[in-house]
Amino acid sequence: MPVIRVTLIEGYDEAVRDRLLEGYSAVTRTVLGAVPDGITAVIDEVKAANYRRGNQRKSPKAPPPAPEQIVRDFLAAMERRDLAAANAFLAADFAMVFPGGARFTTLDELIAWAKPRYQRVGKVYERFDTVPGMDHAVVYCYGTLEGIWPDGSAFAGIRFIDRFTVRSGHLLDQAVWNDLAERMSDGG
Amino acid sequence: MPVIRVTLIEGYDEAVRDRLLEGYSAVTRTVLGAVPDGITAVIDEVKAANYRRGNQRKSPKAPPPAPEQIVRDFLAAMERRDLAAANAFLAADFAMVFPGGARFTTLDELIAWAKPRYQRVGKVYERFDTVPGMDHAVVYCYGTLEGIWPDGSAFAGIRFIDRFTVRSGHLLDQAVWNDLAERMSDGG
Amino acid sequence: MPVIRVTLIEGYDEAVRDRLLEGYSAVTRTVLGAVPDGITAVIDEVKAANYRRGNQRKSPKAPPPAPEQIVRDFLAAMERRDLAAANAFLAADFAMVFPGGARFTTLDELIAWAKPRYQRVGKVYERFDTVPGMDHAVVYCYGTLEGIWPDGSAFAGIRFIDRFTVRSGHLLDQAVWNDLAERMSDGG
Amino acid sequence: MPVIRVTLIEGYDEAVRDRLLEGYSAVTRTVLGAVPDGITAVIDEVKAANYRRGNQRKSPKAPPPAPEQIVRDFLAAMERRDLAAANAFLAADFAMVFPGGARFTTLDELIAWAKPRYQRVGKVYERFDTVPGMDHAVVYCYGTLEGIWPDGSAFAGIRFIDRFTVRSGHLLDQAVWNDLAERMSDGG
Amino acid sequence: MPVIRVTLIEGYDEAVRDRLLEGYSAVTRTVLGAVPDGITAVIDEVKAANYRRGNQRKSPKAPPPAPEQIVRDFLAAMERRDLAAANAFLAADFAMVFPGGARFTTLDELIAWAKPRYQRVGKVYERFDTVPGMDHAVVYCYGTLEGIWPDGSAFAGIRFIDRFTVRSGHLLDQAVWNDLAERMSDGG
Amino acid sequence: MPVIRVTLIEGYDEAVRDRLLEGYSAVTRTVLGAVPDGITAVIDEVKAANYRRGNQRKSPKAPPPAPEQIVRDFLAAMERRDLAAANAFLAADFAMVFPGGARFTTLDELIAWAKPRYQRVGKVYERFDTVPGMDHAVVYCYGTLEGIWPDGSAFAGIRFIDRFTVRSGHLLDQAVWNDLAERMSDGG
Repeated sequence: MPVIRVTLIEGYDEAVRDRLLEGYSAVTRTVLGAVPDGITAVIDEVKAANYRRGNQRKSPKAPPPAPEQIVRDFLAAMERRDLAAANAFLAADFAMVFPGGARFTTLDELIAWAKPRYQRVGKVYERFDTVPGMDHAVVYCYGTLEGIWPDGSAFAGIRFIDRFTVRSGHLLDQAVWNDLAERMSDGG
Repeated sequence: MPVIRVTLIEGYDEAVRDRLLEGYSAVTRTVLGAVPDGITAVIDEVKAANYRRGNQRKSPKAPPPAPEQIVRDFLAAMERRDLAAANAFLAADFAMVFPGGARFTTLDELIAWAKPRYQRVGKVYERFDTVPGMDHAVVYCYGTLEGIWPDGSAFAGIRFIDRFTVRSGHLLDQAVWNDLAERMSDGG
Repeated sequence: MPVIRVTLIEGYDEAVRDRLLEGYSAVTRTVLGAVPDGITAVIDEVKAANYRRGNQRKSPKAPPPAPEQIVRDFLAAMERRDLAAANAFLAADFAMVFPGGARFTTLDELIAWAKPRYQRVGKVYERFDTVPGMDHAVVYCYGTLEGIWPDGSAFAGIRFIDRFTVRSGHLLDQAVWNDLAERMSDGG
Repeated sequence: MPVIRVTLIEGYDEAVRDRLLEGYSAVTRTVLGAVPDGITAVIDEVKAANYRRGNQRKSPKAPPPAPEQIVRDFLAAMERRDLAAANAFLAADFAMVFPGGARFTTLDELIAWAKPRYQRVGKVYERFDTVPGMDHAVVYCYGTLEGIWPDGSAFAGIRFIDRFTVRSGHLLDQAVWNDLAERMSDGG
Repeated sequence: MPVIRVTLIEGYDEAVRDRLLEGYSAVTRTVLGAVPDGITAVIDEVKAANYRRGNQRKSPKAPPPAPEQIVRDFLAAMERRDLAAANAFLAADFAMVFPGGARFTTLDELIAWAKPRYQRVGKVYERFDTVPGMDHAVVYCYGTLEGIWPDGSAFAGIRFIDRFTVRSGHLLDQAVWNDLAERMSDGG
Repeated sequence: MPVIRVTLIEGYDEAVRDRLLEGYSAVTRTVLGAVPDGITAVIDEVKAANYRRGNQRKSPKAPPPAPEQIVRDFLAAMERRDLAAANAFLAADFAMVFPGGARFTTLDELIAWAKPRYQRVGKVYERFDTVPGMDHAVVYCYGTLEGIWPDGSAFAGIRFIDRFTVRSGHLLDQAVWNDLAERMSDGG
């Protein structure tokens, strides 16, 4: 039943407005359980000259990339071992936790830790989920790992899930769970 | 900068309205990167008699419980092995995936599978995250497992994460990742 | 698709608000051909103290009765020959046109004209239609006449239609068409 | 006193928007009896990309012609005996009722019935009235008939009224009342 | 033509809401030159629980007294020589300018300066004007002075004007112009 | 906390819209004492075709010049003794009051009165203040006079204040206070 109406200074591109409308619709659907056809969401765009806060015009800064996109780009850089590109996504106090509770603050530490575990690893994604938030967004992605064991044999279909905290276009942390040990303990 | 205004038929309780305003604020902050103080969200409540869709009055049905609450209640029922209560949360075609890719469609199957793995397990939650959606919501929770191994020794601090799909107050599926195998392969 | 939102000073009773919402919904459906479920109509009620036009508070006068009700009440008064009540509905310059183009400005003239035509006549209504307007509303009603011919025999099922112009709770004019002559020329 | 505000996806042409604003103004005036200068009606047009219902964009279909226009076009086709054009306006289950209760479902039946009644008939319109509705609109038109009697003599000034039910650009039914019999019984 | 609509958290008392509506109406009239009857101003009150900025509820603080009231109260305190009450209206860095450019920062300085000029002075007000502002408001008042000259003779009808800067309920400064010297140079 | 939203027919130029937004912001700040960042003001512009009052389109007339501008232009014309230009700003029943209560209704009277007082006078403005109003606006300006005494000596820094009532682009009256007599009585 609800009608959601948001007033924006004009100039946001369509993909950004799409994400807003999707987000408001999803929140409404989830919180109220309203029938989808009863959820109307509308954006009113007004000229920058027609908007003031505190009697001052505002020039909205460009919105950050979608958190999912940041995570995808970071993971792609890691997969092709482009550490310079991957590092550019990390916040100053970035931290990682890997299976078994291994903690790192640099990508080099991670790579050193992974070296005896596999020669190469890649991710096949099943889904990304984004949790919007005031302070930061959270992005989850999960699917399966495929790659090469240290002994040169191949593996695939090993379940994984990653969780990223994203703020202002940078990653604050990454947490990883997967079934690698499960597979290895199966005699993998 | 944006102003979000939602028109609701009056009668939703305050906790529901809170979740709406939080949700809209979070979506706006995440998508636009707007400064928090520039994000205004307002609910207009109108009498049921003052609202029509298709020239018909609407009586909004009671909103479902928050997806996080459903998951918390299900997990609590499981932990105290109250299977009747736990089953009441499951959709007809519920399915589970556990580490190593073990798949079950009933709680009994899960319990049989878990029996040789531990005598008892409990979850210490670090955080719940909810992803709103049109078709369903997704709830993630993660933290650590503590319990008793089959040999009677205790364990604790083993990382886990669960992912639930929630629709209309029921769970469609659960996926679990954890470091149990990692710990066991460490000689746990 | 449209959302219609009307702001009213509070105090109009529910039947009046119902007619407003019905009217806006019907106009929207008729003009746009929009699917009914896509037409949302909402009334916002504000306190009289929260409304000004020309920097002056307004006290909305009581709305007039629905035009259909005025016509129904007038016709009922005529049918029971309560001329005092019927006259109370007529505007100062009221005029009537009856089949054959007979024109009257008073109910007495009408009654004199009708005397040789039937001993008694009553109306069985099939439907009332109201045409809203800025200057006046128009009410149509149609159905069948039943009554007693001058010779004492009964008639029924004779088609009629009336058209009334209504302004500020009074009738400006009435135009009548019916099949009485058709029936009489059939040897009625 | 009221302010009516309708939000539309942009793209409706000005004549359609005019009819909406006229319709809302007329409903408001008729129901509330508000002074005309106190009735403000405004259309907000938003880009299609800025509107979602059920999280889906909507492409409003072209609105149907005004019901009055459909009736005018149908009557003009009938008057020039362009039956192909006239038939194109009729719904599948169209039905007509003429004075004396004559009922037809095809134009051919009507023409056969009319043949002994007049050689030719035309309508001089005094006014059209449209009644908006959710399910269908109703159009009334009235005025006078002029034409040629079977004996070749001319007639004019004979009162008539037609009532049409219009849905989705087609006529569901037509009901006709007129004074032809009245005139004939006068020795016409 | 304009419609001004302001959304407020409910709880402001009616006098405050009146001043808002008057202020918006006056600004609109002055800037646009619109006909008064075309200026509609409306307040929407929403529950505090239905409003968030930056995802936080807001509790509006009590509005300050009207600037005109502060000035009236200060001037009344001065006239009855209640210096304690008068001082309570002054901001920490209050400053005054009197005819001839005499500058003071305390009421005591003013009183010392005035002593040889008149035994007593009172103000008859013709009008107060308030200039709203973001940083501070300005209040003007003017009229005539009446009182007693040092020699015991009375005076009256001497034109004066005062200008006050008001912020957060306190006076930042006062500037005074009057015709006392004019009258005295006339041999007053 | 408030959100002010004004709906205008499009076509007002940006300086006019700026003055509206400034005015609404200042009124809100002054009346409510709200923090500036909590005051949002937005203009919605709608096409003339999308606006009706009393079911009629409105063509807003060009807004009058800002009252301050009218006063500035009048004072500049007076200073350069362009009486034709200055007279064009005066309403038919214009009236002036000068120090000592001197009253004039024409500029010629003023000039005759001033002749023995100074050879030339100019104004150095410190500030203009505008008081918006429904019936008229009031403009205050103050600062210092500089010029030439009748004896040919120069003066400067003499405090003055003017008050003008402005309606529909014309001056209804002017009231003047200054320290000229104060200075003269000092032996100026």
